[in-house]
Amino acid sequence: MLTAERNELLTRFGRGTPVGELFRRYWLPVLLGEELPEPDCAPVRLKLLGERLVAFRDTQGRIGLIEEFCAHRGVSLWFGRNEEGGIRCPYHGWKYDVTGQCIDLPSEPEESGMRKNIKLNSYPAIELAGVIWAYLGPADKKPQEPAYDWTLAPPGNRHISKRLQECNYLQAMEGALDSIHSGFLHRYSVAEDPLLKRDPESLAMLLGDRKPKIFPENSPAGLYIATRRDVGRDRYYWRVTQWLMPCFSFFPPYGGNPYGGHAFVPIDDEHCWTFSIDYHYLIDRAAQKAKKSFSGIRGVGVQDAAIQESMGPIQDRTREHLVSSDNGIVKTRRRLMDAASAVARGADPPGLDPEAQRARAVSMVASRELSLREAIAREQRSQAETVSSA
Amino acid sequence: MLTAERNELLTRFGRGTPVGELFRRYWLPVLLGEELPEPDCAPVRLKLLGERLVAFRDTQGRIGLIEEFCAHRGVSLWFGRNEEGGIRCPYHGWKYDVTGQCIDLPSEPEESGMRKNIKLNSYPAIELAGVIWAYLGPADKKPQEPAYDWTLAPPGNRHISKRLQECNYLQAMEGALDSIHSGFLHRYSVAEDPLLKRDPESLAMLLGDRKPKIFPENSPAGLYIATRRDVGRDRYYWRVTQWLMPCFSFFPPYGGNPYGGHAFVPIDDEHCWTFSIDYHYLIDRAAQKAKKSFSGIRGVGVQDAAIQESMGPIQDRTREHLVSSDNGIVKTRRRLMDAASAVARGADPPGLDPEAQRARAVSMVASRELSLREAIAREQRSQAETVSSA
Amino acid sequence: MLTAERNELLTRFGRGTPVGELFRRYWLPVLLGEELPEPDCAPVRLKLLGERLVAFRDTQGRIGLIEEFCAHRGVSLWFGRNEEGGIRCPYHGWKYDVTGQCIDLPSEPEESGMRKNIKLNSYPAIELAGVIWAYLGPADKKPQEPAYDWTLAPPGNRHISKRLQECNYLQAMEGALDSIHSGFLHRYSVAEDPLLKRDPESLAMLLGDRKPKIFPENSPAGLYIATRRDVGRDRYYWRVTQWLMPCFSFFPPYGGNPYGGHAFVPIDDEHCWTFSIDYHYLIDRAAQKAKKSFSGIRGVGVQDAAIQESMGPIQDRTREHLVSSDNGIVKTRRRLMDAASAVARGADPPGLDPEAQRARAVSMVASRELSLREAIAREQRSQAETVSSA
Repeated sequence: MLTAERNELLTRFGRGTPVGELFRRYWLPVLLGEELPEPDCAPVRLKLLGERLVAFRDTQGRIGLIEEFCAHRGVSLWFGRNEEGGIRCPYHGWKYDVTGQCIDLPSEPEESGMRKNIKLNSYPAIELAGVIWAYLGPADKKPQEPAYDWTLAPPGNRHISKRLQECNYLQAMEGALDSIHSGFLHRYSVAEDPLLKRDPESLAMLLGDRKPKIFPENSPAGLYIATRRDVGRDRYYWRVTQWLMPCFSFFPPYGGNPYGGHAFVPIDDEHCWTFSIDYHYLIDRAAQKAKKSFSGIRGVGVQDAAIQESMGPIQDRTREHLVSSDNGIVKTRRRLMDAASAVARGADPPGLDPEAQRARAVSMVASRELSLREAIAREQRSQAETVSSA
Repeated sequence: MLTAERNELLTRFGRGTPVGELFRRYWLPVLLGEELPEPDCAPVRLKLLGERLVAFRDTQGRIGLIEEFCAHRGVSLWFGRNEEGGIRCPYHGWKYDVTGQCIDLPSEPEESGMRKNIKLNSYPAIELAGVIWAYLGPADKKPQEPAYDWTLAPPGNRHISKRLQECNYLQAMEGALDSIHSGFLHRYSVAEDPLLKRDPESLAMLLGDRKPKIFPENSPAGLYIATRRDVGRDRYYWRVTQWLMPCFSFFPPYGGNPYGGHAFVPIDDEHCWTFSIDYHYLIDRAAQKAKKSFSGIRGVGVQDAAIQESMGPIQDRTREHLVSSDNGIVKTRRRLMDAASAVARGADPPGLDPEAQRARAVSMVASRELSLREAIAREQRSQAETVSSA
Repeated sequence: MLTAERNELLTRFGRGTPVGELFRRYWLPVLLGEELPEPDCAPVRLKLLGERLVAFRDTQGRIGLIEEFCAHRGVSLWFGRNEEGGIRCPYHGWKYDVTGQCIDLPSEPEESGMRKNIKLNSYPAIELAGVIWAYLGPADKKPQEPAYDWTLAPPGNRHISKRLQECNYLQAMEGALDSIHSGFLHRYSVAEDPLLKRDPESLAMLLGDRKPKIFPENSPAGLYIATRRDVGRDRYYWRVTQWLMPCFSFFPPYGGNPYGGHAFVPIDDEHCWTFSIDYHYLIDRAAQKAKKSFSGIRGVGVQDAAIQESMGPIQDRTREHLVSSDNGIVKTRRRLMDAASAVARGADPPGLDPEAQRARAVSMVASRELSLREAIAREQRSQAETVSSA
């Protein structure tokens, strides 16, 4: 159970709030690449960490992410015309480039020098792995471009979608860190998952131990959240979810199926985008084909959203009762609070290092003699070889 | 005209408010019995006195009325599965019985002892006379089961429905205590009332004195609100509405038609349920049949709701101007305030005694020589005989 | 850029606010005459300067504008019956005349004297030039009836409509004082304006100087806002918009087409009515006919509303950046603030004098040797002759 202060701390995103400032230190997914399909396409308005923004792709293909409202008289640039190197306000024709700089101010003589001083707030935005990413933090702290495992998969081996959830990001993200709920909320959906059906060995191990143990461990960029099931007398079935700062989670595939994961991106205190990511490295045409007839996914997502939204816009965690299998959640919150404190003290938060971001979820059967760390290290070495050979 | 403080006092229901605590001392109608039609049926969520609750009927038919949100991570139990002796949260399978006690906590070993300590708030709920009733007050103050006159009528002689009103309970209830408005708001609807048409004598007396006098008098459980019309030179036509603490009103029938009444149950400060109750003791098949073609009722209810809601969510009674025929309303408010003070002082409020609850509305023509009390006493004695003989 | 205090000052209308009190010193358009089409027609409810009112036309044709809620128990008189000299509350039949005086109180004996003391707030309302006008200020300050130029045009030479805007009146009105935006927001709509097409000379001058200069000058009732374009080497093309206190603007016609203008009437802080007025003095049947097929007008209005509402309910003017061509807006705000201060000091605001209200928008081509004042004076003299001869 959290104190009211900590629940507040973990769920608020305004500029200047500790967790708001923490999130502003990372590249965050904000749009699908296809939402800005071509140069000079229609602009898109969006809210991110409570800030109202407009995104556009200029004539040269550069992405702009600037304040929504014109500096002149406050008109929404969502009504703007995206043309010849900038977005033009429809009211009096003021025009801005992707940096927010005013580049045309028709109603004022250029000699007045006014135009040069007009600049809307803007944020760096890049397109990577089919997603538009933005960085809302201080310019001198901008990290390297994101290098999460899935961003390195070949474009054809990746599928990304997003859905709106009418609740705070934290209750959506906590659902992804909690493998126990699958046995309840998704029980019948999981059993009908065609990908899992193709991996009868994993399914047997999942069903063989209905009371798994959860081991969350710090990783360089976040946490390993390992779920351990007994297999016979001498082996464990480990499934290791990667939680990566500040809002990513990835779970391991069943057999040769794709990896999956989510990004939970705060729109404002009471709404978030849930990005869903599937990816693999080996081109498995059969799996791709199977995916087309994959009917369970949508069901599972709707199940999660319904349950998470049912807690109200911001769950009152002063009334919760966590149990031992919630230790992944407990540790995630602790990691977020520590990282927010670090940022507040002027230190860097974890997970900015591309090497650390490349963490991959793991599923493995290992001897009981191996510790989790040893088993993960061995598995990751063999996975690293997969990437280079793919 | 009320002071702002008194308007506030009479219209607020949060835990700890005087009138909120007063209402928590009574059994209140909360659902129609048919809303929980059978054991293990779908749960129903509801709000009562500002508290969010979920109601269910368990495998044995017991009614549970418990907090809406799971103690674990705050999921709404409206999404729950009502099964084998309790309602199970769909997220991680925590299960609660009708007392709110957690009876299964699959993700934690029973040995930890945690499960036993998990208990959601719950309230006693019973089914009586086609209605689910709840008691939200202190356990040691729980009154006897309700015994209002209509709860004693045979099941087939009773019809109960409810409608939502988007206003505070008080302005809905005040409408029911005020017989004057029928001559205006319901003028044409009343005249077309097929039940009244069957009682031409009453109709003639109603039309014969358009300026009746109102006499509200304390009764053991609330008030008699008597409307007196002159009939010829030596008789009065009395119609006595029973207002029973804290939110019931019953009006007398015309001729041999059914009795009618309402319960006005606070959902929260700005919404209430209006339960409508018709009942009779003698099986009058013709009246039942007539009722099927009764077209006016719905119109009358909609008339009341429109007018009462038009006052705004909570009427500003500092701007009202009450007149002498509003004396029933004045006295009702006084009775509510006194009862709230009594509860605040630690005393019991009136109307908990089943004998007092059995008050029945009265319509009678009596000699002018009889006082109202004498006339009522005589009439009630003859009615009591009706019940026992029915 | 305004300080937050001044933005607040200019946009708030509650009773007692400086600009709210300023507006209460003027007759304001509140309804179209056709909204109260005949004696005893259905009442209309409306909000004006944040006050909830009901308007009706009584049996004798007098217009009533009174508080929305019955003095008895707070029912909305919008549900009332407008009959025989007053509006009757549907709940208990209290009846009010156009002054708000209760003229029937059926549930109370007349001898009690209560009825005479019941009086709802009411405001003077008149019908003039197809519009219902109201005065919400102190009785002893009531100005003469409005005498704006368009109110003097013959009834058949006038067309008035209104639309709701979901934003504060000021951002709607500022749009009308700013002729620059036409070259952007309405560019293609203006070029297709059939009335402008009939005046190729004006169109050529408009297109011939895309960077006009704006000269706002105090006038007795508000401001002249003159837009000056070069025509050849020795002449200017002047277009002079009249802004009249507190919320009227009129623009000059192209060629022989009608004059046009707007009234921006505050409903509450976040909504306004935009009345659109077209009028002319010479009966030009061809123009009337053209107007029937006039398709651009609606487009232009929707363009303005979209842009003005996109600024949010109340634009944050602490973030604007005004330029030299916004000088009309700057001066208008200054004029409003000065007038509000004057009223607060106990002085009269400008623009109450009918002579001053008769200001008419001007369009003219004049020698560069004439100053704006001289050119306007000459033009207005010739216009005055037009009225008397029409």
